[in-house]
Amino acid sequence: MAETLISVDLTKSPLENENIHNRWHPDIPMACWVNPGDDFILETFDWTGGFIKNNDSADDVRDIDLSTVHYLSGPVGVKGAEPGDLLVVELLDIGAKQDSLWGFNGFFSKKNGGGFLTEHFPQAQKSIWDIEGMFTKSRHVPGVRYAGLIHPGLIGCLPDPKMLEAWNAREQALIDTDPTGSLANPPFAGTAHMGKMTGDAKAKAAAEAARTVPPREHGGNCDIKDLSRGAKVYFPVYVDGAGLSVGDLHFSQGDGEITFCGAIEMAGWVHMKVTLIKGGMAKYGIKNPIFKPSPITPTYNDYLIFEGISVDESGKQYYLDVNVAYRQACLNAIEYLKKFGYSGAQAYSILGTAPVQGHISGVVDVPNACATLWLPTQIFDFDINPSAAGPVKHLDGSVVMPLSPDL
Amino acid sequence: MAETLISVDLTKSPLENENIHNRWHPDIPMACWVNPGDDFILETFDWTGGFIKNNDSADDVRDIDLSTVHYLSGPVGVKGAEPGDLLVVELLDIGAKQDSLWGFNGFFSKKNGGGFLTEHFPQAQKSIWDIEGMFTKSRHVPGVRYAGLIHPGLIGCLPDPKMLEAWNAREQALIDTDPTGSLANPPFAGTAHMGKMTGDAKAKAAAEAARTVPPREHGGNCDIKDLSRGAKVYFPVYVDGAGLSVGDLHFSQGDGEITFCGAIEMAGWVHMKVTLIKGGMAKYGIKNPIFKPSPITPTYNDYLIFEGISVDESGKQYYLDVNVAYRQACLNAIEYLKKFGYSGAQAYSILGTAPVQGHISGVVDVPNACATLWLPTQIFDFDINPSAAGPVKHLDGSVVMPLSPDL
Amino acid sequence: MAETLISVDLTKSPLENENIHNRWHPDIPMACWVNPGDDFILETFDWTGGFIKNNDSADDVRDIDLSTVHYLSGPVGVKGAEPGDLLVVELLDIGAKQDSLWGFNGFFSKKNGGGFLTEHFPQAQKSIWDIEGMFTKSRHVPGVRYAGLIHPGLIGCLPDPKMLEAWNAREQALIDTDPTGSLANPPFAGTAHMGKMTGDAKAKAAAEAARTVPPREHGGNCDIKDLSRGAKVYFPVYVDGAGLSVGDLHFSQGDGEITFCGAIEMAGWVHMKVTLIKGGMAKYGIKNPIFKPSPITPTYNDYLIFEGISVDESGKQYYLDVNVAYRQACLNAIEYLKKFGYSGAQAYSILGTAPVQGHISGVVDVPNACATLWLPTQIFDFDINPSAAGPVKHLDGSVVMPLSPDL
Amino acid sequence: MAETLISVDLTKSPLENENIHNRWHPDIPMACWVNPGDDFILETFDWTGGFIKNNDSADDVRDIDLSTVHYLSGPVGVKGAEPGDLLVVELLDIGAKQDSLWGFNGFFSKKNGGGFLTEHFPQAQKSIWDIEGMFTKSRHVPGVRYAGLIHPGLIGCLPDPKMLEAWNAREQALIDTDPTGSLANPPFAGTAHMGKMTGDAKAKAAAEAARTVPPREHGGNCDIKDLSRGAKVYFPVYVDGAGLSVGDLHFSQGDGEITFCGAIEMAGWVHMKVTLIKGGMAKYGIKNPIFKPSPITPTYNDYLIFEGISVDESGKQYYLDVNVAYRQACLNAIEYLKKFGYSGAQAYSILGTAPVQGHISGVVDVPNACATLWLPTQIFDFDINPSAAGPVKHLDGSVVMPLSPDL
Repeated sequence: MAETLISVDLTKSPLENENIHNRWHPDIPMACWVNPGDDFILETFDWTGGFIKNNDSADDVRDIDLSTVHYLSGPVGVKGAEPGDLLVVELLDIGAKQDSLWGFNGFFSKKNGGGFLTEHFPQAQKSIWDIEGMFTKSRHVPGVRYAGLIHPGLIGCLPDPKMLEAWNAREQALIDTDPTGSLANPPFAGTAHMGKMTGDAKAKAAAEAARTVPPREHGGNCDIKDLSRGAKVYFPVYVDGAGLSVGDLHFSQGDGEITFCGAIEMAGWVHMKVTLIKGGMAKYGIKNPIFKPSPITPTYNDYLIFEGISVDESGKQYYLDVNVAYRQACLNAIEYLKKFGYSGAQAYSILGTAPVQGHISGVVDVPNACATLWLPTQIFDFDINPSAAGPVKHLDGSVVMPLSPDL
Repeated sequence: MAETLISVDLTKSPLENENIHNRWHPDIPMACWVNPGDDFILETFDWTGGFIKNNDSADDVRDIDLSTVHYLSGPVGVKGAEPGDLLVVELLDIGAKQDSLWGFNGFFSKKNGGGFLTEHFPQAQKSIWDIEGMFTKSRHVPGVRYAGLIHPGLIGCLPDPKMLEAWNAREQALIDTDPTGSLANPPFAGTAHMGKMTGDAKAKAAAEAARTVPPREHGGNCDIKDLSRGAKVYFPVYVDGAGLSVGDLHFSQGDGEITFCGAIEMAGWVHMKVTLIKGGMAKYGIKNPIFKPSPITPTYNDYLIFEGISVDESGKQYYLDVNVAYRQACLNAIEYLKKFGYSGAQAYSILGTAPVQGHISGVVDVPNACATLWLPTQIFDFDINPSAAGPVKHLDGSVVMPLSPDL
Repeated sequence: MAETLISVDLTKSPLENENIHNRWHPDIPMACWVNPGDDFILETFDWTGGFIKNNDSADDVRDIDLSTVHYLSGPVGVKGAEPGDLLVVELLDIGAKQDSLWGFNGFFSKKNGGGFLTEHFPQAQKSIWDIEGMFTKSRHVPGVRYAGLIHPGLIGCLPDPKMLEAWNAREQALIDTDPTGSLANPPFAGTAHMGKMTGDAKAKAAAEAARTVPPREHGGNCDIKDLSRGAKVYFPVYVDGAGLSVGDLHFSQGDGEITFCGAIEMAGWVHMKVTLIKGGMAKYGIKNPIFKPSPITPTYNDYLIFEGISVDESGKQYYLDVNVAYRQACLNAIEYLKKFGYSGAQAYSILGTAPVQGHISGVVDVPNACATLWLPTQIFDFDINPSAAGPVKHLDGSVVMPLSPDL
Repeated sequence: MAETLISVDLTKSPLENENIHNRWHPDIPMACWVNPGDDFILETFDWTGGFIKNNDSADDVRDIDLSTVHYLSGPVGVKGAEPGDLLVVELLDIGAKQDSLWGFNGFFSKKNGGGFLTEHFPQAQKSIWDIEGMFTKSRHVPGVRYAGLIHPGLIGCLPDPKMLEAWNAREQALIDTDPTGSLANPPFAGTAHMGKMTGDAKAKAAAEAARTVPPREHGGNCDIKDLSRGAKVYFPVYVDGAGLSVGDLHFSQGDGEITFCGAIEMAGWVHMKVTLIKGGMAKYGIKNPIFKPSPITPTYNDYLIFEGISVDESGKQYYLDVNVAYRQACLNAIEYLKKFGYSGAQAYSILGTAPVQGHISGVVDVPNACATLWLPTQIFDFDINPSAAGPVKHLDGSVVMPLSPDL
């Protein structure tokens, strides 16, 4: 049986756990060391470190301080790993903590984080999803049940100083283009948790450590639903020992993680195995991680597919903009689901949490990009296919998703 | 046996065929009429109407007048179809013309059309793909062979005058933002082929008819690879009789049709069946077409997945831009394939023509979008998976893709 | 475009076509020759050579002389093929003849051929299936529609004299165990069609030529539904030139071809490519053909699975008998489908023609074998899953399958 | 979190646990009761109750007393269940016990149990398989690694007295046909474990209780690999409370469980949910259980397929005998794998433990049945596909499977 190298106690704050960190910095000390070929288990907090509760109020989603996320387990040092290597990580299995068999999905307030459709859903809302073995369902979103496509939203290795500097420089340059906005998040020492670091060293590193929200060259917060248990990932190594960290586990998520808060977020554990390809970055010309999907994934294959083009709700034309096109595909799917009795928020929640596919279907036919959203029909308790008779309203609106207006 | 309602003679110009048109306009007369429940066959030219030849020069790709495309077969009138209905089209089968069992893929010159990676591949290039039953392979791109995911790149119904007006207005507004550029293509009467229209009526309609390149609310040039034979599509109807047209057949294509010229482009035929859902647009809240994929598609399921984030090649940071992210994923895949002996152009060609998936993996983690490109490994004659030993160079570079420098 | 090496005229008797044969014998002359690497097309009669008609009477099924089948196209000689080689055949594509877009399925009378459930369906019955592009449906079996899993029921190479002798000897030994029965069919010169052979040579060969019904070491009438277009087969070679013949095309079939007459039987064409693995039989220890399935097959994956054990309808216990177990699974499925309004004959016809899977689930748990029948639910127009409310009778019995009582 | 209703302590004998039984009898008292709609966990011993050890000797496989198996957990009473109902069981998840992350596969001696290929492998052999998250591999069978298709080999409800009587009668009638053989196993009180029963009641019931080896109308030891976690099963109910028992968990198995001892056998737990369809047996015409497969199963889809016909190794002809045909397909696959360096025993072990499919391909073409064995190529560390170059011997024979000769 694999050893659990990092444990988390969900009754305590992640800040008390020195094997947890919430920033990226090359100086964060390894929480533990393993050998190539080892397999081991890391437990993880949910990405908010327990801030979001299993209840029927969205106040916590509204009030969260997003500078605190994500709480990651690690870094794990791999003996012999050197810059330029590829660290091969097999995700042997992933699961929820037995004392926490539930997850949450929510929409942040437009004033605090927002999300892909925040113009349409500007207020904090939340849904709780119970985990029943390999499946999940929600008391706030009736009529659906999914098989889990369990994955870490965030996984990757420590950056080296040069890479960290490049991240900070390019993101600050973007921030500088709109000083009043929130295009990106610069380092912020106030809520930084730097693992075992203390004192001045911690203060110095915290002041320059990268935030965890964006995915970057090392992987990080990619939120790729298909990087699921059973998958094999090839990570670039930038520092001696690699420094692998993981967190932000999701029981299920749709392509894009459009709800931002987020997928079905959960605390849990990852059983993984690490090996090395020496010099693999140059051998294979690798800049970002590459991976192979799992041989065990939900086999839903009956989809209803929605199209969107890069013309927005107001009729404004954009030039080959996939984001606009995918947003339209999502809105089209939501309008469709409302005909069966879902509220818009429930439909949005389904798109954020079900194993929905989002495809970049066309990016060259000026001026319209075309994106498609693939909704698996087999997750519904009733038939959502179109028919000559028209839709049947299966839900009466009596079940609603908690909403907390801005204060 | 289903009747062939529209025939094309590949030895003649599409301009001589009055059941062909290359613009969208509500006044284009129906080429023929069918009843709901009918199934029938339409033959089609390739999208360039035969301009691109099966040879080893890319001159035709360089020299093409893109104002002439796409040559569509139709419109087919469906009796009883009225605005607000959904026209249900089953693609019963699709194939190449028996006298034309090949297709082409190319990159347009950056000066004439370009493509998704035109900054990296700015000159006209071409590859020819032979169709062998259900499979295709190319004398210009060795080491790969695909099962066809045959589909129409372009299919949809005639717009009504109001919709046409909206298209022209919003696209002109975009064009006006950069008068020196080519953000979109306004109506252009010079090369318009308006089916049976003649004289003044034709001249008037041609001057305001929409170009066929962008996908729009009616579907049109969506270039969705999964809208393949066996699929079922629900099209909005805007005019009496619907006016269904189809063309731009592809033997195979990757998500995004990133090479623009285009997929594996071919002349062929479509066997389809039409029925109606009366008032279906309002019943289901439909703005863009929706569809169900075919039960018969290539079952490749061993993928190598490349990630890209919205930081460009120069290190510049973009805000949640999926286009930039997908471009990076594509470039990452190309670099990888070069390690096995492919030229960059050949690798690009594979990404444009193979059943590659492009997923919108993350669109909320500011400031980086994350896109993934899924490359099916089973299309290669050799193993392209990473290993500790490093890549084996299977190709010696002796096979090259035709290139025609700008004049 | 591939050359059609063997053509068939469906308006003429197969006996007039010297590229057709209905027996296996090493002396049958090659109908034509090809080189390794060639691809070519062979047209085929349906297995009965046109005896069964597209009408609403089962008289032809009742009256057929089964000594006349199967009419095969070939043999094709492959230059350089020698005994001990493996002949690699790629089934590049398969289709129905354009002038014959239909197929038949039937049950033989128990007195003339029978079938797997002949005790329950002892009289001749027939259903006609129309081919609509990639799909089929029947005017005699309502409520179902399948995507075609098109395949040759019969394909293989000529035996050598020694193998032929072994076949005849072992089958005669079986026949001799029950002289009054019909356990197997010995050579029968009366209706033998020996291709180009004439005169005494023909008479001699016809008297010893093997019948085509059973599958044997060379492949032959395997009726394997998954050996479909796109598949790659490795056939043992016994004679110089190999002598590849093919026929008995099926548009769709369930595992077991339980109705015997047969799958959805059709006239059509096969586009194939041949190569050689020299000495491949010894290299790989090959006795029977091996094959790889197609990458393009129907993706139905929602199944309702019926179990059967080796206890027959009367309660008699058999020892690990998979045949008895599969028969029970089939009967269980038929009883289930009757609850939705199907006649037993229609249900039997579905099991014989749809892409039903039959699995050997357990063969060691004395005394009961366990077999499972996998019925794809997505082929039905209505929901056949069990529910607390019980089955809905979707069919009113007004559509019946033609039946012709024994004379 | 679901409650664990039955626990097992692997350090103790199953005979000490009164929630375990190894016979079928209507009088076995319910171990516990649940309500329809409940989900709960049952832990299970491996089928031998811990007799087979994780070591490198096959002595235990040779010496086992097969009258002791299978040790089942239950029966679970379901409130409100009555004869004629269908008990719907959802297998929400299944796993190995954390203190026992391994399984075994073996061949019984021909003198004690045997197996499907016992004539070829007449002596006791064993392989141990380690469970690594979702995967398994063996120190005795190199070069393969599978994703688990985890399932209970044995699950079903208690028979009523009449059914029990019928079982005993028909099996005794078979036994009587060969008094010297072991065609089936009659009741045997000596090693019966009857759960909570004691004293005379136990003695009486044990003397007539059915053995657990064969699958029967209630399901029982079906050993169906696809009845895996995530599947939904509909069981006939024969007694008030249904009396659901489960055991014989398998981490992975091939169709047929041809090695008999058995699949990859393990101790573990089953998380399940029960509901009822009142009167469901009559409503749906159910005799044996039916089920729907899981939406989460290994997606291996690249198969090498071996054919077998009903002519045995000696050349003897059988009449449409699927067992003989499947045995030939298995032997053909074993010969093939030996060319890559496997011993026959290792190859046999792979066929018994990997997610191999066994199809009943043809059962009507007198006199030969045709069966196919589908070997997933993606479970091998190396390429096992045929090529013109011939097979590469990847294994040097240095790793062997333990064998214990008969005493």
